[in-house]
Amino acid sequence: MSFLNTLSSIVGSDHVLTGEKALPFLSDWRGRYKGNAIAIVRPSSVQSIINIVRLCKQYNIAIVPQGGNTGLCGGSIPNNNSKDSIILSSTRLNQIREIDLSNNSIVVEAGCTLQKLQDISLEKNRYFPLSLASEGTCTIGGNLATNAGGTQVLRYGNIRELTLGIEVVSPDGYVIDLLRALRKDNTGYSLRDLYIGSEGTLGIITAAALKLFPICDKKWAILVSLSSIENAIEFLMETRCVFDASLTAFELISQFCLNLSLNFLNDKKYRLDTDFIDHPWFVLLEISAIGDIREVDDFMSNRIKIFLEKCIVLGYIDDAIISFDNLHFASLWHLRESIPLAEKDFGKGIKHDISLPVSVIPSFLSDMEKSLRLHFNGVQIVVFGHLGDGNLHYNVFKSIDQSEESLLSLQWQIYDLVHSKVHDFGGSISAEHGIGQLKVNELQKYKNAGALDIMRRLKKSVDPDNMMNPGKVLDI
Amino acid sequence: MSFLNTLSSIVGSDHVLTGEKALPFLSDWRGRYKGNAIAIVRPSSVQSIINIVRLCKQYNIAIVPQGGNTGLCGGSIPNNNSKDSIILSSTRLNQIREIDLSNNSIVVEAGCTLQKLQDISLEKNRYFPLSLASEGTCTIGGNLATNAGGTQVLRYGNIRELTLGIEVVSPDGYVIDLLRALRKDNTGYSLRDLYIGSEGTLGIITAAALKLFPICDKKWAILVSLSSIENAIEFLMETRCVFDASLTAFELISQFCLNLSLNFLNDKKYRLDTDFIDHPWFVLLEISAIGDIREVDDFMSNRIKIFLEKCIVLGYIDDAIISFDNLHFASLWHLRESIPLAEKDFGKGIKHDISLPVSVIPSFLSDMEKSLRLHFNGVQIVVFGHLGDGNLHYNVFKSIDQSEESLLSLQWQIYDLVHSKVHDFGGSISAEHGIGQLKVNELQKYKNAGALDIMRRLKKSVDPDNMMNPGKVLDI
Repeated sequence: MSFLNTLSSIVGSDHVLTGEKALPFLSDWRGRYKGNAIAIVRPSSVQSIINIVRLCKQYNIAIVPQGGNTGLCGGSIPNNNSKDSIILSSTRLNQIREIDLSNNSIVVEAGCTLQKLQDISLEKNRYFPLSLASEGTCTIGGNLATNAGGTQVLRYGNIRELTLGIEVVSPDGYVIDLLRALRKDNTGYSLRDLYIGSEGTLGIITAAALKLFPICDKKWAILVSLSSIENAIEFLMETRCVFDASLTAFELISQFCLNLSLNFLNDKKYRLDTDFIDHPWFVLLEISAIGDIREVDDFMSNRIKIFLEKCIVLGYIDDAIISFDNLHFASLWHLRESIPLAEKDFGKGIKHDISLPVSVIPSFLSDMEKSLRLHFNGVQIVVFGHLGDGNLHYNVFKSIDQSEESLLSLQWQIYDLVHSKVHDFGGSISAEHGIGQLKVNELQKYKNAGALDIMRRLKKSVDPDNMMNPGKVLDI
Repeated sequence: MSFLNTLSSIVGSDHVLTGEKALPFLSDWRGRYKGNAIAIVRPSSVQSIINIVRLCKQYNIAIVPQGGNTGLCGGSIPNNNSKDSIILSSTRLNQIREIDLSNNSIVVEAGCTLQKLQDISLEKNRYFPLSLASEGTCTIGGNLATNAGGTQVLRYGNIRELTLGIEVVSPDGYVIDLLRALRKDNTGYSLRDLYIGSEGTLGIITAAALKLFPICDKKWAILVSLSSIENAIEFLMETRCVFDASLTAFELISQFCLNLSLNFLNDKKYRLDTDFIDHPWFVLLEISAIGDIREVDDFMSNRIKIFLEKCIVLGYIDDAIISFDNLHFASLWHLRESIPLAEKDFGKGIKHDISLPVSVIPSFLSDMEKSLRLHFNGVQIVVFGHLGDGNLHYNVFKSIDQSEESLLSLQWQIYDLVHSKVHDFGGSISAEHGIGQLKVNELQKYKNAGALDIMRRLKKSVDPDNMMNPGKVLDI
């Protein structure tokens, strides 16, 4: 039997896609990456995946795991031409295997979407905190492969910190069962953490045991205006010290960025006073509380007001808007969440997903802007992101008299400038999007040589035939 | 120059210990493990460690890293006779390299004691949450090598979750610098997490960047009496849902265990009413809050009282004692913390450091007790531990008419019975103490075969000459 026929005998011919039907899987959602594959295979069971992996091993065909295909670095699109590959799409492997309310844990299969997981948790009166723009489409497997972050990391951590255990199919086609839903388990090397963030290059994550949390009964969104980025850092420190775990988000927005969003939304319900807008920086923070709503509402609303007044007196912030009901809460968040779409409307830019120690962000921003303006006169800089955990989206757009093509042709020069400065300031060139195929060379440049050596050894020992997502993360 | 002379030229002859001076390092603090080593070497710099590792590689001599030597599984005592070894003691490599308050992070060297780190954090108005009985002696390097847990895991996680970055000297004698103090960094495999918990078998952790937290202004200790273990689980779920991150500890104590502690302390200030003591189970929980003391005190004290009254009405708990001042807080905690010493006073027992999904703990305890009584009639069972994260200390003591030697001779049979049941219930045979040399065979029995295979491959790829702590964790 041929390779394709055997694949069909494993998953059914309806789930081996070639030709036209394969196209949507062969490029990413933004159309930035295109690849080739013998077929797209859509298994719905772990046993099928085992059989597929063994078959691929026999035929020396590589496997590119793909979840919701919402990645930003081309991690789930084939790019290696030294070997034929298939795309293994996880979207049919999407069952909730178990919910254990007393243990506050849930076991889900890799192809389950983040939204489905969030919804089922809520139905059971629990909260799964990972929250991303792509949550309707992205899968838990993809979230794990890239160690997804998002807006709630400040309080709940990345998905790594939300994960108790995982199940993996190895490149040899056997199951590595690490699914025990335990909060403490020191039995040998933490393979769970090795696979999380390995972007499908060491094996295929097929399921995960995840933590569930109590639902917060009440949330406040607060938009504050600030005179400087230094003040934003002081304000963050103060807020953390006063609200601790009740501080669930702390998002920075530059003035240029806020205006982009306001213009994009173009609706009077989002209107802000001119005096308020006339500031270089804004922070959207979220405070959450649990408990009897009226009791907590009175107590926390009062604490929030007193705290913000103190921060105005101390000069950390200039003004603050506190959400007064659920609709207002949603509209303040909508201002922040619309930034990526507003940016897209504004044009194509060169985007950086960076993180820095929070303390150096003011110096970095000032140095970086000077340096960019020196080398690329007139470019427009859009800064926003998760200041609470040091993660900035630092995006560069064309100058007014420049063409978009001309800016985009400078992509690698601008990357060079930004990433080398991030590196010098002790930061990371990939905070939450991963390496994929986009940043393989960048990683070689900036990652510690000792660490790269160990990474290569690990890859070779676990996947000696380079079967798993070749050409991603490492240049092998 | 001979091996020992070269060692002396690296660290100074005062810091190469042999003969009498070496003895304290060659056995653990409880005297359960004894080993041999050519010398104890005490470097005070990373460069010295690099030189030592290169020298050992040249002479094919193994390295056993040792911190405070407070481990419970013999992980830092040499046990491999196939190769000569040195003990590399980290206690002189103990500097605080950097405190970054705005980033809420601190960089410390591996030999720094946990107590020193806690104290320095407090001086800077920050909190480092790891808390262990051995904190005055144990080192951060040892804590990281074993992924230490303790009483605050429920809220803050194990030391893995408290770590931003680490620095490691590889078995080849180069530095793997992963010290960036970032909360989001997805640049390749998480080597940090591979080294954390690897018990010195993959390299020597020399420093770590750790998270700091705000200090809680007010804490309440609450001792409650319960009629059943099922009630304790219901009570835990209810408490988590109502207090979320303010619940900072949830410790289970059996009646036998509480009596041991009360008898050991033997002081009227610890006296409890007979009615209160007349229960099979007790929980000591801790609620913490941040904010203006008086304001928070009133609000939370009131919430706690209302909550406990509700739990009494619901039948989850029978009675509760809330700490009314700092002294009372300390004395309630002292009841819990004295258990290990009270146990020691009681005699030698067979101890298990296990974890389970919280939901199965009632069935496990009931099955386990039946099974133990069936096979080892009359043994006394002492149960306590961190119920909030499923981690129990499950200890078996001799029956009244049995000799201690007779019980201890049954150690492996009792291990077998307990560990196999833990395994069947989806638990872990080592929750927070690690594998060391004690549980190498147990790990072979219970760890998933696929996981063991990957672990062996990793060890061989990173440390092909088996230089680093041979015979620990894995049987190589």
